[in-house]
Amino acid sequence: MKLYTYFRSSAAYRVRIGLNLKGLPYESIPVHLLRSGGEQLLESYRNINPAALVPSLDDGGVILTQSLALLEYLDDAHPAVPLLPADAAGRARVRALAMILACDTHPLTNLRVLKYLKGELGVSEEAKQEWYRHWTADGLATLEAQLARDGRSGLFCHGDTPTQADCCLVPQIFNAERFHIDLAPYPTLVRINQHCVSLSAFIAAHPAQQSDAE
Amino acid sequence: MKLYTYFRSSAAYRVRIGLNLKGLPYESIPVHLLRSGGEQLLESYRNINPAALVPSLDDGGVILTQSLALLEYLDDAHPAVPLLPADAAGRARVRALAMILACDTHPLTNLRVLKYLKGELGVSEEAKQEWYRHWTADGLATLEAQLARDGRSGLFCHGDTPTQADCCLVPQIFNAERFHIDLAPYPTLVRINQHCVSLSAFIAAHPAQQSDAE
Repeated sequence: MKLYTYFRSSAAYRVRIGLNLKGLPYESIPVHLLRSGGEQLLESYRNINPAALVPSLDDGGVILTQSLALLEYLDDAHPAVPLLPADAAGRARVRALAMILACDTHPLTNLRVLKYLKGELGVSEEAKQEWYRHWTADGLATLEAQLARDGRSGLFCHGDTPTQADCCLVPQIFNAERFHIDLAPYPTLVRINQHCVSLSAFIAAHPAQQSDAE
Repeated sequence: MKLYTYFRSSAAYRVRIGLNLKGLPYESIPVHLLRSGGEQLLESYRNINPAALVPSLDDGGVILTQSLALLEYLDDAHPAVPLLPADAAGRARVRALAMILACDTHPLTNLRVLKYLKGELGVSEEAKQEWYRHWTADGLATLEAQLARDGRSGLFCHGDTPTQADCCLVPQIFNAERFHIDLAPYPTLVRINQHCVSLSAFIAAHPAQQSDAE
């Protein structure tokens, strides 16, 4: 498998974690989101993914996109070491936890959105940073509330085995730390993140460990 | 099952379509997003869903959230009339098509985001409308490109059977029409939408057919 990735893209980071947790080897193809006006915007990459976003996964010539769809695909095509629990309610819970970050939080703070705020809307650097903090804090608070009140939370977001939800949590916390967001209100997230980042699958997926890291 | 819903919420609309396609009866519990400063923000609803978003699904006391996680749950818990194809690559494709709208498009144009633009950022009504059009057009263009180039597109987004992707497409087109977005650049989406909205499962899920419609 080939993964079109950018070291600091949190959507790509999720899939790198998933691949590593499942022990699936892959080749990284870097797509630099800032160089050449954004390599993801080039015709050559748009032919791979018309959304002009990373990651994309090439599995034997079949191109797949959207980080959560990729994590689901890894389970469908390579069932060993599942990233979802076996019961329907547990699966729904893990997917919802992942989507709090992947649907309701991260898309609002993505590079293209920050560019639009600064460019088309002409907002100040400070207001842009506050936008980032606001939506990140909102998503983290929702996730903290869901995790703290539910006995199914364990060493990881769901029990004592890593799932899709942890694949999303760790990159979101990495981003939050980059933007100096206070994590004190989210003790459950901090605890789970700390456990995750001590494990080799998460360490190898870290932005700093990627071949295109700067 | 009980569905916490708002007639015009496109996330709730997706799940209503899915429930209808699968022939699963449910009770609607309206949550009015504009009345009382937003009923979704009340403590009583936040106890159900800390994200303060609709929809939420109550299946025998188990509360589930996030529209795409709910559609997955319906397939896991009620496998008849699946909303996903059987093959791994097809499943990944359908999920990615759904996520182009549910992750990369709709969250950017959600009520809470439009409120923040007008309130905290003080953007003009016109700039807010342009934001809405920009991100909607971006998502629709990506979806059109993915559908138009792929032989697996059929009467529906994937073949001749409705899937999760159609559950997301129809509410997004409904929104686009409300905001007078030109749909001429998206002939494949228009064709599939036209077919969908002629079917009883989609008709019964339409905002105008809901008990809380205004």
